[in-house]
Amino acid sequence: MNYPMSKKAVILLSGGLDSATVLALAKKEGYDCYALSFAYGQRHHHELEAAKRVAQSMGVEQHKIAHIDLRLFGGSALTDIIDVPKASCVEDIGSEIPITYVPARNTIFLSFALAWAEVLRAYDIFIGVNILDYSGYPDCRPNFIAAYETMANYATAYGVEAQQRIRIRTPLIDKTKAEIIRLGRSLGVDYDMTLSCYDPLPNGTPCGVCHACLLRAKGFSEA
Amino acid sequence: MNYPMSKKAVILLSGGLDSATVLALAKKEGYDCYALSFAYGQRHHHELEAAKRVAQSMGVEQHKIAHIDLRLFGGSALTDIIDVPKASCVEDIGSEIPITYVPARNTIFLSFALAWAEVLRAYDIFIGVNILDYSGYPDCRPNFIAAYETMANYATAYGVEAQQRIRIRTPLIDKTKAEIIRLGRSLGVDYDMTLSCYDPLPNGTPCGVCHACLLRAKGFSEA
Repeated sequence: MNYPMSKKAVILLSGGLDSATVLALAKKEGYDCYALSFAYGQRHHHELEAAKRVAQSMGVEQHKIAHIDLRLFGGSALTDIIDVPKASCVEDIGSEIPITYVPARNTIFLSFALAWAEVLRAYDIFIGVNILDYSGYPDCRPNFIAAYETMANYATAYGVEAQQRIRIRTPLIDKTKAEIIRLGRSLGVDYDMTLSCYDPLPNGTPCGVCHACLLRAKGFSEA
Repeated sequence: MNYPMSKKAVILLSGGLDSATVLALAKKEGYDCYALSFAYGQRHHHELEAAKRVAQSMGVEQHKIAHIDLRLFGGSALTDIIDVPKASCVEDIGSEIPITYVPARNTIFLSFALAWAEVLRAYDIFIGVNILDYSGYPDCRPNFIAAYETMANYATAYGVEAQQRIRIRTPLIDKTKAEIIRLGRSLGVDYDMTLSCYDPLPNGTPCGVCHACLLRAKGFSEA
């Protein structure tokens, strides 16, 4: 049987500026977009509020929030009671794997996206990983993404049928933050709806000094 | 820096007879075993009770239960309000992908195991997949396992360090149910503690006519 090429896509949506830009790109390519966010025991829920704002304003078909508790295993400043590192400028951010790395996080996120994609028969999964900003995160690198894509096509019933290849789409992987922001602006993304901060104040205001805040500020200043 | 070879392993433990046998094998090989089970929205919780009995009686270092809601996506008789198929004998079980298949389930289970393995620095993850009983499940096949293993070594910080290769261990993959039972008995596994049924009665008694019950009964009769 021949299926028509699917124009459904699952988009991993964090509430940050990268994934909002990815969603805008997928819509521009004509996909019906199914957005997936996670309540994963991160220390704050302001980023989920941002994800809801972005999903609603950009017109997704559905937005689901999966509840998973990565605090079960520990090992990261984003899920444990460990201080999020702060710096005074981007140059002070080290090149080692930071304590904000969450073990296997993108592997887990993509696996949930793959489950939903199989139910939807969506062959494209978009994720806003970026190798320049997060060079210390192994699960943001092209060889990880390629290996994941290969695995996904063996892992699923609809992948094995091979009507169409499952693809992990990473349109931002080699772009600078400034390039991402210029791209998003050209697509009409309202970045005021997004939140990048790892450690916002109780009212949701960004801290301004975590690595995510510094990278975001540098991106806007260069864009 | 040289690390000593890790003798920690993460064991995916369902409460069924296969994973109990895998746990016994891992202990026989001298691993310190960390058992991981899932409350994933399956229709009954008797299998989690079985997993707890098995973990406790076989002396694991830790047993964690991750709560994830695969009902969020639907698409399976094990998580949806769809009747679990019944048959009168093993020969009536078809070779097509059954409705009890849960999209991307083993991909998701292995991804959580990988997260815990990274925190523990455990390089071996054991899973009781079997290609003979579940030939219709793509995520029980050797090419899926090989692709997952490759991906895991790119996905994680400790995998990229490459002190030791992360391995997905599938000691039962090509064994018949009777061979598995004979092996388990030689290792002292008490199969009365395990539960294989997809659809037990409210008091936990196996239904006797779902595919898992039929395969189990045939295995015991042949062993």
